[in-house]
Amino acid sequence: MKIAIVNGPNLNLTGKRENDIYGSKSFEDFVSDMKKGFPQVEFLYFQSNVEGELINHLHELDNVKGLKGILLNAGGYTHTSVALGDAVAAIEKPVVEIHMSNVFAREDFRHVSYVGKHTIGCIAGFGMESYLLGILKLMNQA
Amino acid sequence: MKIAIVNGPNLNLTGKRENDIYGSKSFEDFVSDMKKGFPQVEFLYFQSNVEGELINHLHELDNVKGLKGILLNAGGYTHTSVALGDAVAAIEKPVVEIHMSNVFAREDFRHVSYVGKHTIGCIAGFGMESYLLGILKLMNQA
Amino acid sequence: MKIAIVNGPNLNLTGKRENDIYGSKSFEDFVSDMKKGFPQVEFLYFQSNVEGELINHLHELDNVKGLKGILLNAGGYTHTSVALGDAVAAIEKPVVEIHMSNVFAREDFRHVSYVGKHTIGCIAGFGMESYLLGILKLMNQA
Amino acid sequence: MKIAIVNGPNLNLTGKRENDIYGSKSFEDFVSDMKKGFPQVEFLYFQSNVEGELINHLHELDNVKGLKGILLNAGGYTHTSVALGDAVAAIEKPVVEIHMSNVFAREDFRHVSYVGKHTIGCIAGFGMESYLLGILKLMNQA
Amino acid sequence: MKIAIVNGPNLNLTGKRENDIYGSKSFEDFVSDMKKGFPQVEFLYFQSNVEGELINHLHELDNVKGLKGILLNAGGYTHTSVALGDAVAAIEKPVVEIHMSNVFAREDFRHVSYVGKHTIGCIAGFGMESYLLGILKLMNQA
Amino acid sequence: MKIAIVNGPNLNLTGKRENDIYGSKSFEDFVSDMKKGFPQVEFLYFQSNVEGELINHLHELDNVKGLKGILLNAGGYTHTSVALGDAVAAIEKPVVEIHMSNVFAREDFRHVSYVGKHTIGCIAGFGMESYLLGILKLMNQA
Amino acid sequence: MKIAIVNGPNLNLTGKRENDIYGSKSFEDFVSDMKKGFPQVEFLYFQSNVEGELINHLHELDNVKGLKGILLNAGGYTHTSVALGDAVAAIEKPVVEIHMSNVFAREDFRHVSYVGKHTIGCIAGFGMESYLLGILKLMNQA
Amino acid sequence: MKIAIVNGPNLNLTGKRENDIYGSKSFEDFVSDMKKGFPQVEFLYFQSNVEGELINHLHELDNVKGLKGILLNAGGYTHTSVALGDAVAAIEKPVVEIHMSNVFAREDFRHVSYVGKHTIGCIAGFGMESYLLGILKLMNQA
Amino acid sequence: MKIAIVNGPNLNLTGKRENDIYGSKSFEDFVSDMKKGFPQVEFLYFQSNVEGELINHLHELDNVKGLKGILLNAGGYTHTSVALGDAVAAIEKPVVEIHMSNVFAREDFRHVSYVGKHTIGCIAGFGMESYLLGILKLMNQA
Amino acid sequence: MKIAIVNGPNLNLTGKRENDIYGSKSFEDFVSDMKKGFPQVEFLYFQSNVEGELINHLHELDNVKGLKGILLNAGGYTHTSVALGDAVAAIEKPVVEIHMSNVFAREDFRHVSYVGKHTIGCIAGFGMESYLLGILKLMNQA
Amino acid sequence: MKIAIVNGPNLNLTGKRENDIYGSKSFEDFVSDMKKGFPQVEFLYFQSNVEGELINHLHELDNVKGLKGILLNAGGYTHTSVALGDAVAAIEKPVVEIHMSNVFAREDFRHVSYVGKHTIGCIAGFGMESYLLGILKLMNQA
Amino acid sequence: MKIAIVNGPNLNLTGKRENDIYGSKSFEDFVSDMKKGFPQVEFLYFQSNVEGELINHLHELDNVKGLKGILLNAGGYTHTSVALGDAVAAIEKPVVEIHMSNVFAREDFRHVSYVGKHTIGCIAGFGMESYLLGILKLMNQA
Repeated sequence: MKIAIVNGPNLNLTGKRENDIYGSKSFEDFVSDMKKGFPQVEFLYFQSNVEGELINHLHELDNVKGLKGILLNAGGYTHTSVALGDAVAAIEKPVVEIHMSNVFAREDFRHVSYVGKHTIGCIAGFGMESYLLGILKLMNQA
Repeated sequence: MKIAIVNGPNLNLTGKRENDIYGSKSFEDFVSDMKKGFPQVEFLYFQSNVEGELINHLHELDNVKGLKGILLNAGGYTHTSVALGDAVAAIEKPVVEIHMSNVFAREDFRHVSYVGKHTIGCIAGFGMESYLLGILKLMNQA
Repeated sequence: MKIAIVNGPNLNLTGKRENDIYGSKSFEDFVSDMKKGFPQVEFLYFQSNVEGELINHLHELDNVKGLKGILLNAGGYTHTSVALGDAVAAIEKPVVEIHMSNVFAREDFRHVSYVGKHTIGCIAGFGMESYLLGILKLMNQA
Repeated sequence: MKIAIVNGPNLNLTGKRENDIYGSKSFEDFVSDMKKGFPQVEFLYFQSNVEGELINHLHELDNVKGLKGILLNAGGYTHTSVALGDAVAAIEKPVVEIHMSNVFAREDFRHVSYVGKHTIGCIAGFGMESYLLGILKLMNQA
Repeated sequence: MKIAIVNGPNLNLTGKRENDIYGSKSFEDFVSDMKKGFPQVEFLYFQSNVEGELINHLHELDNVKGLKGILLNAGGYTHTSVALGDAVAAIEKPVVEIHMSNVFAREDFRHVSYVGKHTIGCIAGFGMESYLLGILKLMNQA
Repeated sequence: MKIAIVNGPNLNLTGKRENDIYGSKSFEDFVSDMKKGFPQVEFLYFQSNVEGELINHLHELDNVKGLKGILLNAGGYTHTSVALGDAVAAIEKPVVEIHMSNVFAREDFRHVSYVGKHTIGCIAGFGMESYLLGILKLMNQA
Repeated sequence: MKIAIVNGPNLNLTGKRENDIYGSKSFEDFVSDMKKGFPQVEFLYFQSNVEGELINHLHELDNVKGLKGILLNAGGYTHTSVALGDAVAAIEKPVVEIHMSNVFAREDFRHVSYVGKHTIGCIAGFGMESYLLGILKLMNQA
Repeated sequence: MKIAIVNGPNLNLTGKRENDIYGSKSFEDFVSDMKKGFPQVEFLYFQSNVEGELINHLHELDNVKGLKGILLNAGGYTHTSVALGDAVAAIEKPVVEIHMSNVFAREDFRHVSYVGKHTIGCIAGFGMESYLLGILKLMNQA
Repeated sequence: MKIAIVNGPNLNLTGKRENDIYGSKSFEDFVSDMKKGFPQVEFLYFQSNVEGELINHLHELDNVKGLKGILLNAGGYTHTSVALGDAVAAIEKPVVEIHMSNVFAREDFRHVSYVGKHTIGCIAGFGMESYLLGILKLMNQA
Repeated sequence: MKIAIVNGPNLNLTGKRENDIYGSKSFEDFVSDMKKGFPQVEFLYFQSNVEGELINHLHELDNVKGLKGILLNAGGYTHTSVALGDAVAAIEKPVVEIHMSNVFAREDFRHVSYVGKHTIGCIAGFGMESYLLGILKLMNQA
Repeated sequence: MKIAIVNGPNLNLTGKRENDIYGSKSFEDFVSDMKKGFPQVEFLYFQSNVEGELINHLHELDNVKGLKGILLNAGGYTHTSVALGDAVAAIEKPVVEIHMSNVFAREDFRHVSYVGKHTIGCIAGFGMESYLLGILKLMNQA
Repeated sequence: MKIAIVNGPNLNLTGKRENDIYGSKSFEDFVSDMKKGFPQVEFLYFQSNVEGELINHLHELDNVKGLKGILLNAGGYTHTSVALGDAVAAIEKPVVEIHMSNVFAREDFRHVSYVGKHTIGCIAGFGMESYLLGILKLMNQA
């Protein structure tokens, strides 16, 4: 069983900056922990700051055999990218929208989600635990 | 360890109507399953269609000893109730916003959350699994 | 054959206050008149100022055998209650939206109807005759 | 006693197109039925797709002796015509706003009514029965 | 020297209805007075409730030799008709926007003027005197 | 002479939570102080978190003999409840809108008041002194 | 094979006014050219400045045998006419929205199209070539 | 008989700057011309760039005996000054809103008029002739 | 102990005009009454119609020794003046926002308060009693 | 003669996914067909999901000799990219906006076009035929 | 060579209040420093809290010989004053918009600039250095 | 001492296109001039049309030793990119927002700046001098 994690802009800084918001653990460490914790799952991790590369990657993931679903944290593109929303709509794999911070408690422009119109659901506000809950959800998915 | 589940308007119909949306399992059955699955947790379940009774209940839960947190699915009040949002702000227990449907893929008036301004996070779109993920989150809470 | 009339906030004052707007007949008298005028119909009358009790009552009415439909005057909740609109959507009995005053000739905030998204139609502006026309409609309903 | 029915744009197609929405009976047949059902009433029927002809006709109806009122289904002009609303305001005969479909359950731009600011009330959503209820209302009018 | 007066919807009722707003003099009388008062001017008077006929007439007036300008009271179409605004833009004769009532002291939807984007100016609020002032303006026009 | 104080949602927590905002005195203590300070006044105190119970109570107060007026702090319902505003409009006793915090210095959604459309005035921002000033106002009322 | 061209308000002026925008060729000349260029097609040409006559004409065209489709340039009514949009929705012939100017590069109020909600597509910005491309499209239509 | 002309901000530059918009005649010259042309009228001329001085002056003019009315060109304050609108509302002399340019053909923020809510009418777009027409209106005023 | 009263535009007319709204007592008389009623307080009274003079005066008051606070009725500037709001923010003396009329029951543009973002509270709707209540509040201020 | 086709995000999926919307032919096949059908034209085809690469490519195309114009289907970037609109404005080659679906009949956020402000026109709604019509237009271009 | 600095409301408090925002240096000291640092420049300094005096002063500066340009910090009037924007448009001297704080990082109502529509540019966010950079810009101006 | 200049979309065209707006000097020449003029500064120049590459580059610059700050002209991304704004927020180096044109005098959609919420200030409107002033500012930075 495979699960993909796709991270958007600025998430490469996690664990390196703004630790008060995002904690001090890097994504590399987090993915490593997940691999240990869920040895039965193959994790595919991808991060890019480029909107179009995220679209490219979603297209590619749709062809990956045995992939149960995608955890997508589109960062700032969540709120502005019609194109990324269209990409989620175009692929068949289930996508879960992930946010580390509680976007609904932040600025108004973060309350819009073009991605969310086509995902199966959303988990937001629990830091890296948001991903963990998403993994549990996808493992449970029929 | 105690965990509270608070359900708002129309959620008493779950499992009885609109099964295509909400599935055919009632909340009573779901809570019963949870009790079996997590014997170490005491579940406090409450449902009301009355906005003010939900506020009353949140006030009371804040005084419950050993309560790790509250899963709140405020239903339609999520999007209109300043008073309920104020209640969440006033209490100290951590509150997780829960929705069975993916509200971000529905009508525009469901994209506003007065509750979400004061919760620690949100899980939406996974039917009853939204609650299950919320329980896992609260069990994990330091 | 049964027909239910459900009245929302402040409609208990009808006939007692603001007679220039709502006339001098109380709802009790009106229902009594209806019973005389339509002896073949059993009228179920309910009024509450509490939003959640209106939701409760709609849920209950949906289980009443022989009920042809519901006349719902949700008063001020018409324009603000997503939860009440969801309740109308959840039940199967046909609901007709009723207003005594012509809401479309009043303040802008009365031109929104969350209830109306799920009713079969609307009758507004004819005082108590709005209900009478609604009764005729439901009696005629196949 | 006379009652006028004034129909606006596209209503000449009733019974000929989009039967799933508007039914298969033409207005000519409906008016014929009304004449039989209410022999004591003289029905004045007018339809035009031209906004200004509707205004002209409303002006003329205001001079018709014995006319108890007007049922006006202004179709698409309901939502855009300040001029038609002004015409309703300028005449003295009572006007009832009629819609076959439940406009409040359709697109947002159909929730505005310039006509409704000057009518005595509105009946919407019951197909041709909307007119029948309007006739009953006007027959009842003091 | 010729001056045209073009009146839009409902202005045929002037002097016949709503006298408290528009006075008791009809336009026929007013034009007759103007002819007496300004014998050197040939007045061309036109009224229609049909938006398209107003457009037709503006097109025709543009070909009238010796026409110094047009006084246009587009009534309710002022606020809604892109097409009428386009017609004013398309012709070369100067057009003065006229209103009997002070539209700026009325409802918000009367504060928009598609016509006004292409006229040389506007006179509003002085009843029939608005036209008189417009005549003086056009007589003075180089 | 009687004066009624009606408190809405979450105000039962005053003195118990968020003391930095609302102070450490409870309403019970405050009312007790008022009784001592103004022995010539009979104070009627009511609090509910239920919107409809507040409406019920306003209806009842309107029948209380000798009641000079009502101090209404509708809390979060102030900004969302058309129904509560209608209740204030329906009763005859003068109502003063009260807020402990300066709502005009808080979030935009607190700058709307449906209640304020029908009260005689508003006092906001002075904590419990807002009520004291309201009492002085009502005692002074002719 | 028949193709209909329906032109709305002010398009009768094409070739006569504002030549810098619309060129110096009249529609009569254009249609004549089309007839020569496509002898296998019968062209039905109609222009009116009256919104309702455009609706009437669309209704009639729907009954024309052998008509492959309709090129509709609704001019200023494009942006304001719910009724014309409803007419396009009601007929079965395919309709292509045509504009001579690039409406999307003009004022904001020209970016709305009620017609476009029910057409099969849109061609805008190429002057009379917009019609030519529309003819090619309809000739190609299965 | 007295007539007052009150000019607001930047109108002291008339005839000195932006001559292509406002012409090359100064207000001093214009008033001088008016005095010659209407020897029976005493003209009171005032200009200030200070919003509050315009309010002061309106207050004073209200006490001037024999003053038939006021021509007020409030310049940029027209569109932003609630206080100036309140001043016009507070005085009893009739006020005519004057603009040299056609404000309705300029930027959107010039389509709002706080002054216009309380004037008897508006004349805009005719340069200094706007004032002349206003003088004729006031001389005609009963 | 000193208390300052600062009145903005048009409030110099109180007692002289629009008595039905503002009563027949002038501010001079009111201040005189206050001096008699509260001999222990020195009242500093200032009124100006000029926005900038109000700002100047607030700056000066901030340097007055023994001044307990300022009652500021900014009239129409309340709703439009960012600069006046900034002045209130810049000074250290507590400011209470005062209105004679209930601004929340008037036009929408009076529901905005730039001043209110920086005051300690607001009293509105009680005519001159609004000031009296403000004085009591400031006398009570620690 | 050269013609460029530039496709934006997700259009690489054409013919591979969502065939019901976009048909089953891939762009490679379509371009191949075009080359056969128009041997006198050299087609330059480019697709990218990366907004900035589309901008880069437009810059480069502007230097291509003999290029008659560009067909640009910017996909989801059409509605959000000021930068892409600026690129179209900056180059000299004529650009035609192309869409396969009728964007004007889809969600509101697809009715905005930053690209369209600087193109010569738009063709939308005809699937791959939209490109064919664009090619015919550019071949015809003087 | 002369350079003018014009400061609007509340800027007279610089160095005296809110030092954490604006620093502890007064404008008098700053201008004195500038005179020493740039002996070849004659500095004209003006500050007023009165909107109209700022307009007056801009008018006067336009007549000053040898004046290279104006640094205008209009404070709170920046965001609300159409009249001040008109004044900047009316004069010929180049004007640079100056702000000490970064207005674009503050409240939404500070993101509007009526002044900025007519200036040659803007420098914001650098405290008194904003002025220094403006001086360098104007000294460099051809 | 190092200073970085980061240019966004379309700025690679500077000096090559639209010279009337941006001048005829290329950025390469400008940077070369800067190096000569400020030999004590090491300039780091970067340009990309790809939003994500700009984000990548900002991340990298944050690790450059001796870098005093960054001049960021984000071009069209300024107004639409939440992600780029987040990148500026995430890094510690001071960023100055730069624009060659006066964005505040252009279209409304250019008055929004996501970047500006996190910069220390903004310089706009002076062509390449905007950068020069930014360099002076950063050299002056403590």
